[in-house]
Amino acid sequence: MQTKSREIRLASRPDGFPAPENYELAEVTHVEPGPGEVLVRNTVMSVEPYMRGRMNDTKSYVPPFALGACMQGGAVGFVVASNDPALPEGTWVQSMHGWREYALGKATEFQAIDTSLAPASAYLGVLGVPGLTAWAGLKHVGEMKPTDVVFISSAAGAVGAIAGQLVKLGGATAIGSAGGAEKVRYLTEKLGYDAAFDHKGGDIAAKLAKAAPGGIDLYFDNVGGEQLEAALGALKPFGRVAACGMISGYNDEMPGPRNMLQIVGKRLRIQGFIVVDYMKRIPEFLADVGPYLRSGKLVAPETYFEGIDTAPEAFDKLLRGGAHVGKILVRLAPEGTKP
Amino acid sequence: MQTKSREIRLASRPDGFPAPENYELAEVTHVEPGPGEVLVRNTVMSVEPYMRGRMNDTKSYVPPFALGACMQGGAVGFVVASNDPALPEGTWVQSMHGWREYALGKATEFQAIDTSLAPASAYLGVLGVPGLTAWAGLKHVGEMKPTDVVFISSAAGAVGAIAGQLVKLGGATAIGSAGGAEKVRYLTEKLGYDAAFDHKGGDIAAKLAKAAPGGIDLYFDNVGGEQLEAALGALKPFGRVAACGMISGYNDEMPGPRNMLQIVGKRLRIQGFIVVDYMKRIPEFLADVGPYLRSGKLVAPETYFEGIDTAPEAFDKLLRGGAHVGKILVRLAPEGTKP
Repeated sequence: MQTKSREIRLASRPDGFPAPENYELAEVTHVEPGPGEVLVRNTVMSVEPYMRGRMNDTKSYVPPFALGACMQGGAVGFVVASNDPALPEGTWVQSMHGWREYALGKATEFQAIDTSLAPASAYLGVLGVPGLTAWAGLKHVGEMKPTDVVFISSAAGAVGAIAGQLVKLGGATAIGSAGGAEKVRYLTEKLGYDAAFDHKGGDIAAKLAKAAPGGIDLYFDNVGGEQLEAALGALKPFGRVAACGMISGYNDEMPGPRNMLQIVGKRLRIQGFIVVDYMKRIPEFLADVGPYLRSGKLVAPETYFEGIDTAPEAFDKLLRGGAHVGKILVRLAPEGTKP
Repeated sequence: MQTKSREIRLASRPDGFPAPENYELAEVTHVEPGPGEVLVRNTVMSVEPYMRGRMNDTKSYVPPFALGACMQGGAVGFVVASNDPALPEGTWVQSMHGWREYALGKATEFQAIDTSLAPASAYLGVLGVPGLTAWAGLKHVGEMKPTDVVFISSAAGAVGAIAGQLVKLGGATAIGSAGGAEKVRYLTEKLGYDAAFDHKGGDIAAKLAKAAPGGIDLYFDNVGGEQLEAALGALKPFGRVAACGMISGYNDEMPGPRNMLQIVGKRLRIQGFIVVDYMKRIPEFLADVGPYLRSGKLVAPETYFEGIDTAPEAFDKLLRGGAHVGKILVRLAPEGTKP
């Protein structure tokens, strides 16, 4: 058996936003899996902000992507050929073998998922890294209380869309920011945010003050920069910042907030976190979030791009903040493909 | 009885560094204290960075100084006339009635101090706000461990001079920065710092990397700005910042660190604090620090200005970082004056 698979490789390291020439679409041919290996047909892959960091050749909490090699990232799919009894053909799995149509690897690099609980793609979103990030950032980093006013930037994004709903389900008040009127409407009309504003068009501090006139207790920071500065100004004494990502600084060196002195006077706490540190809490996460998902109280918006060749475009939209809402995914097999 | 007292009033609000015209030296005449009141001769007063904030007409954790009124701050002295049996004549006291030679007020506004334990001025330094700040910042905010490498900015200042010694007494490694070669020598030769560097003359990050080649675990931040940026770069994963003051930003709006993204990747924690929140821990503080002071293991450097009319100059030196080391004090009565 020979299986042709297209994959995206890192052709060169980007300076600023990645450009088409930084990627190469290549084709490889897989043969039968060896002992202990499986061949998986990926149906959906994920693009995530942290991948931009891996395109640089700098030390970070995850190693850089290698030049000329296939990129990596979360993906779901099913086993099409197996040489390991732990994962028979037809098993739905998730892995870090994204950016390719078929993945050949050790069975231990793939985890079986339960598609009776939710569609496979949910394991890349609400039940995966974005959901765990939202939950850990609010519960364990931000120590959210029901009386809190919580501000979330990038509030319609993969993490923000889940976080806003978890704020409301926890009894607290959710304020969100997003780029563009359409997304802002989506926040209040579909995701249940109490108030929302467009971070484009200036004076973020004034917009935040209008949305949260009494100030905020917790800021879930997905972007850094001006919104972090506005949040430091709006935080009440003893307020907290759960620093999840600073996407506005991934491509360029970004000046920090001019009002850092607020941290002292208001005794603020800024706590950075990354989701891998919370992997051991996945059972607690599923116990908290699973019931909301089953009862339909928590929805998981998704925006799809079609085909492996659209993955760079999907990643670009993610980094630039397009009109998408929720989790950005790339379909690697036609919708409905199954074992 | 009539007692003439000179005092410093806020004549106008400064823009940037306070200038001579922002102050007025005035003379008042006190009569006998009324019921429940005492008249205190101040011998020494303190200047502290937070006073700059009180010269602005902005909301903060302490109210602004009133225009035309005498300024306030820590002072020590002794009772010269009493109309309250709780504080008889001759009692040494501390109060917030600084910036004046004599203070008339309710006895409850003055606290008796034990000058057999340490000279009265120690209650403005190592046993007062700076000592409590250093101790609380290391122990309760920074959660210092004996294995920590601790970086302290403004390391020869009132807080830093105590903090560096407490780091060493706690078994950890102390790295300090100060302005000028003389102060830098003082850090390693007199205060026991393991390494020290001059923050003037550029490339603070390189100097910090040389002083602490393996990185730092805790940054005790007294200045903000470039040194905070260097510290964020040098902190190891899960490192902490005890944000005590950002004196470089008190006079002007200061751009924040350009490398805030480090907070996320390294899961750093920045925690602001102000000393008033730790007043209730003074017994614990005295239990920790008292023995070191009595045994001579902890020294409390002081720099004196002479006379109430030099108080603005002393404050200016504090804000600009002159060649002084330790606590800056202003003598309001000739050295040796006592009941």
